[in-house]
Amino acid sequence: MGKDLIKVGMLGMGTVGSGVVELLKRNSDQIKEKTETAFALTKILVRDPSRPRNIELAQEIFTTNPDDIIEDPSISIIIELIGGIEPARDYIRRALQSGKYVITANKDLMAAHGEELLSTARENKRNIFYEGSVGGGIPIIRPLRHSLVADQVKRIVGIVNGTTNYILTRMAQDNLNFEDALCQAQKLGFAEADPSSDIEGRDAAYKLIIMSGLAFGFYIDPGQVYIEGIGKVTREDIDYAREIGYVIKLVAIGEQLPDGLALRVHPTLVSHEHPLASVSNEFNAIFVEGDAVGEVMFYGRGAGSLPTASAVLADMAEALRCIRRQAVNGVIEGAKKQASLIPIDKLKSCFYLRFLADDRPGVFAALANVFGDEQVSLDMVIQKRRVNNTAEIVLVTHMVVEEAFNRALEKVISLPAIRPNPSKFRLLG
Amino acid sequence: MGKDLIKVGMLGMGTVGSGVVELLKRNSDQIKEKTETAFALTKILVRDPSRPRNIELAQEIFTTNPDDIIEDPSISIIIELIGGIEPARDYIRRALQSGKYVITANKDLMAAHGEELLSTARENKRNIFYEGSVGGGIPIIRPLRHSLVADQVKRIVGIVNGTTNYILTRMAQDNLNFEDALCQAQKLGFAEADPSSDIEGRDAAYKLIIMSGLAFGFYIDPGQVYIEGIGKVTREDIDYAREIGYVIKLVAIGEQLPDGLALRVHPTLVSHEHPLASVSNEFNAIFVEGDAVGEVMFYGRGAGSLPTASAVLADMAEALRCIRRQAVNGVIEGAKKQASLIPIDKLKSCFYLRFLADDRPGVFAALANVFGDEQVSLDMVIQKRRVNNTAEIVLVTHMVVEEAFNRALEKVISLPAIRPNPSKFRLLG
Repeated sequence: MGKDLIKVGMLGMGTVGSGVVELLKRNSDQIKEKTETAFALTKILVRDPSRPRNIELAQEIFTTNPDDIIEDPSISIIIELIGGIEPARDYIRRALQSGKYVITANKDLMAAHGEELLSTARENKRNIFYEGSVGGGIPIIRPLRHSLVADQVKRIVGIVNGTTNYILTRMAQDNLNFEDALCQAQKLGFAEADPSSDIEGRDAAYKLIIMSGLAFGFYIDPGQVYIEGIGKVTREDIDYAREIGYVIKLVAIGEQLPDGLALRVHPTLVSHEHPLASVSNEFNAIFVEGDAVGEVMFYGRGAGSLPTASAVLADMAEALRCIRRQAVNGVIEGAKKQASLIPIDKLKSCFYLRFLADDRPGVFAALANVFGDEQVSLDMVIQKRRVNNTAEIVLVTHMVVEEAFNRALEKVISLPAIRPNPSKFRLLG
Repeated sequence: MGKDLIKVGMLGMGTVGSGVVELLKRNSDQIKEKTETAFALTKILVRDPSRPRNIELAQEIFTTNPDDIIEDPSISIIIELIGGIEPARDYIRRALQSGKYVITANKDLMAAHGEELLSTARENKRNIFYEGSVGGGIPIIRPLRHSLVADQVKRIVGIVNGTTNYILTRMAQDNLNFEDALCQAQKLGFAEADPSSDIEGRDAAYKLIIMSGLAFGFYIDPGQVYIEGIGKVTREDIDYAREIGYVIKLVAIGEQLPDGLALRVHPTLVSHEHPLASVSNEFNAIFVEGDAVGEVMFYGRGAGSLPTASAVLADMAEALRCIRRQAVNGVIEGAKKQASLIPIDKLKSCFYLRFLADDRPGVFAALANVFGDEQVSLDMVIQKRRVNNTAEIVLVTHMVVEEAFNRALEKVISLPAIRPNPSKFRLLG
């Protein structure tokens, strides 16, 4: 079999794009040997071709006109690394319509419009590959697509946002508060100047939606996913959690329950025994439970230039296999129906609750009554610190439906001895 | 696209074979939907067709004649689950020659004769898939093959034998000695009646050879791999290791060093900080370091009927993709050259050493001189227990070439104050 030449165009040349160029150069011999193909990056769409760049590239490779890539019949594969919804969505659609295979690391786009784009791909007998959209270089999309084909996935539990994991790790290990940990993350490049999508959990939700689509076979409206960020996690909660054998992580959970699918992202107490508990700093890990394979976990660096470029180039090799075999039908994913998610109120969890109360007789009895009335049974109660006349109470419930817990919580807060604004977190079941 | 029917034959019907039958039945709708294909298991080679089995199957499906499967032109995929070298090797060769795709979970065979069988596959434009041969259901072969195509793998470090990991976990957590832990593993089905291949590290070495073939692009003579089992690991060593922040694991290490490849399996002190340290009981994990992706880890149940069946059926779907696309060239792995491994003597490690010495003046000075003469520098020295006139000394060296360390060790042992039979283990670097 001869060495083919495949021409590739790239839209965008930021962090990941530079990694793609570097890696294609550095490991070109190996890529050529493993794929029996030479890949030539022939055009790159950029805003400003004259901007100085770290990587040596001929000036002619740059263009400001997307049609130079999308309409070029000699280009077979387009790598989209612009990010955001538009114009990336329009470019990808047009690329598929002109018969190109598309690779993207764009999680926002794949979460919000993945099904629409995959449908365009199916119509045009092409495909979209998006390994880089979740977990950086960690192989997770391909295993979900190909390795768990005979498994019914019951649950996905992931630490899929490196920024928040770094912040929570620093808070836990260095006793920093949230603001200082965020500041450190920004200094080290683990958090962006505007970190809101990470901090508030949206980034993790997008990744969860993408994985859930493959694992459960549905597409999901991002608006339906319950999202809670890490802004309310305090050092006190981290310390109490540690004391009872847990670590607080921002966890994305997708579950196939008897009544339907449930997707949620929230700070979660993870038992020290659980493999996710030791995933620290900017690392990501995705824990998948299948009915046959049992529990498998994928761990690694969830972001960064070269790790994500590694995923993009693996997708490029997969696109090549489609081209090579002249697949009339290169489609791998079938059409999906939209899932109707179970709202968080109806889900069962164990809850952690921390609040301040007047240190006077009868408070515990009142608490016990309120929880008893709502059938919320307690697994653990800690009362230790006393400042002035105030007692700090931490309790952990057994499994309870969230709406029942919330009813109890409302009554608790309305007790005259209880101070407002309790900390409330869920445990990983 | 219509629903195709693909006929599958199976050689052997033990633990994994039963899992394949069960899973094909249980999740047939999902498999059909995901692959757009119905798989029919039409023939199974067994020794005794009349033997009662847990799974309901028509009597006609069983045969004692391998040719009923290998020579049946209607069968496209053959799953080999007999294990061992012969006759599995002969059956697979003939199956490939008669144009079938082959799936196997046979690690002994793939480690010893993988290249020969892959070469037969290439000649016949077919392929062998062997995801189930390493790590049970953990996707590791496919990621090494497809996901790390643009990465230069620098190192693979794996806990790939569930039996020994279970034994070492019980020794560490329940303070059992080796014999009792082995006995418990056998009772629970985590160790076979004859556990020697597991205990002595051969099973782990086979799996390392298979992974290294894909990661480094060489085939490897099993006889060249340094193998040391867990028979000499004592509770005392486990306790000392814990004290200095380590856990003892049977680790398989494959490395691409500047001078060549090095493969070895031995009990290893793994720092508590390392993700492999928290891989307990029968679980497996494989840690891969690539130049682009950085560190990724794959974790899960490394054996068992359904987990391994999950891997076998994922391979079946991959074989299908080859058939579907009517790939003239279904070969994924190119031909490999045989690697010449660097012998263990030439590798650098940090060493842990524990021995007894007469508790009298001048012993430490003598030790220090011996290590100094061989340029072995010490990172840590512990002397705590004294029984009668005997002191127990534990030391950890800095990085040193093994042959230099061994020269020093020989001199240490020959000192009159030092008792024979020290414990010596390597640290994960």
